[in-house]
Amino acid sequence: MCLKTLEIKFALPSSIKLNQAIGSIMQGVLMERIDHDYATYLHQQNLRPYSQYIFFSKKQNCLIWRISSLNDEAENKILTPLLDLPYSIYLRHKQVNITTLNKEIIYNNTYEKLAQKYFSSIINTDEKAFIDFKFITSTTFKSQGKYIIFPDLHLLITNLLNRWNTYSQTDFLNDKTVYSQLQKHLYVADYKLNMRPFSLEGIRIPAFVGTYTIGIQPNPTAQKIFAMLSEFAMLSGIGIKTAIGMGAVQTQIHF
Amino acid sequence: MCLKTLEIKFALPSSIKLNQAIGSIMQGVLMERIDHDYATYLHQQNLRPYSQYIFFSKKQNCLIWRISSLNDEAENKILTPLLDLPYSIYLRHKQVNITTLNKEIIYNNTYEKLAQKYFSSIINTDEKAFIDFKFITSTTFKSQGKYIIFPDLHLLITNLLNRWNTYSQTDFLNDKTVYSQLQKHLYVADYKLNMRPFSLEGIRIPAFVGTYTIGIQPNPTAQKIFAMLSEFAMLSGIGIKTAIGMGAVQTQIHF
Repeated sequence: MCLKTLEIKFALPSSIKLNQAIGSIMQGVLMERIDHDYATYLHQQNLRPYSQYIFFSKKQNCLIWRISSLNDEAENKILTPLLDLPYSIYLRHKQVNITTLNKEIIYNNTYEKLAQKYFSSIINTDEKAFIDFKFITSTTFKSQGKYIIFPDLHLLITNLLNRWNTYSQTDFLNDKTVYSQLQKHLYVADYKLNMRPFSLEGIRIPAFVGTYTIGIQPNPTAQKIFAMLSEFAMLSGIGIKTAIGMGAVQTQIHF
Repeated sequence: MCLKTLEIKFALPSSIKLNQAIGSIMQGVLMERIDHDYATYLHQQNLRPYSQYIFFSKKQNCLIWRISSLNDEAENKILTPLLDLPYSIYLRHKQVNITTLNKEIIYNNTYEKLAQKYFSSIINTDEKAFIDFKFITSTTFKSQGKYIIFPDLHLLITNLLNRWNTYSQTDFLNDKTVYSQLQKHLYVADYKLNMRPFSLEGIRIPAFVGTYTIGIQPNPTAQKIFAMLSEFAMLSGIGIKTAIGMGAVQTQIHF
């Protein structure tokens, strides 16, 4: 089962005001390009087999759109048609055309290879490990009907495990002891966060961006599993509404 | 019952490394100056009738130490002797002398006058109010034996109410409906926070600094009570270990 990320760069349109709402506009672009039946199927899913987000790169002075597929079907039905995106595309909401500069598959892996990468590696487990989670688009969780305005370690772990178990077709994280193993050895080592609500059709969803560093005690199993999940997080996203651009994360592992 | 803040400025010693541990060193200076029996009494208290913190002011290029008394006894037994602090004082832990530049009472009020200030004022209650809590020294809460690494609205409200009710000798916030009134109308409007642990005798207490903005719905009672408590917070501090320099806060009200 494959894991892929397609990156599309767009020239920065002069007449467009950039804000987080562009995430849901790009979700519209995506939906227009894909098979109608598959779009209907996606709408019925609670956890969707893809994530997408767009951000402005200051360094490259362009918009960068990243779409990740979490299973083979999503690759075929979403990434393949988007690879055929024409040079100029029309954003109906903004009534402007934007032009594509480049399309590239920037991540190409399978669940099996990703697991192998961490489980066959020699990790120095006498030391603590640290993983930075840099939330680059507004991220939030929902628990018991309420938005959770700070990252919560329990929700973050269960969210990633849930996505992995739904789409990977590998069985090895499907054990109840996995969560308790992680929960026991993980802790919040550092953070630098601020609130950045996500506006969606006039509704303000409280959310956060910034850096959240998770420390892992010197435990080989916990370090391997969580390092693997943190690489997966860059494709799956974290928390709610990752299909409309929320919950995009860049992770960095320090063993 | 009086509320006072004494501010003492010190010349920046060249040979001293400034970190948060200076808070507990200043607590030592304070304890050496006060009556032995009163010091013993303070040690037995869970909530102490004073708070103190020290910070480096870039603007004024000096160390600023602020000690606040929350009742008349603390004023007499702590602030009065500290007003007699000599020009040069010796910090045993650091083995250096520091010199005082200035001593000044920068806040002088009573609980009654503070209450009057907010309850006799005409507040435009058709609008939301916002109060910025700027945590300037490491702040944390303890709940069910655990440190709380993000500000928690419930803990913040109960902490302030508890301190007010312990020391004010006014009765008007001692009603159980006060908490529910506040809880119902207050929400987190914004934040920009980072972790800054407090090191105490080799133990690392997880804590945070930064800005936390609380919004208050257009409700006159909730706005008045919480505005009053937020002014009080600058003297009482918030959370645990405010006697050794943690939990110092500057608040700003925007009606």
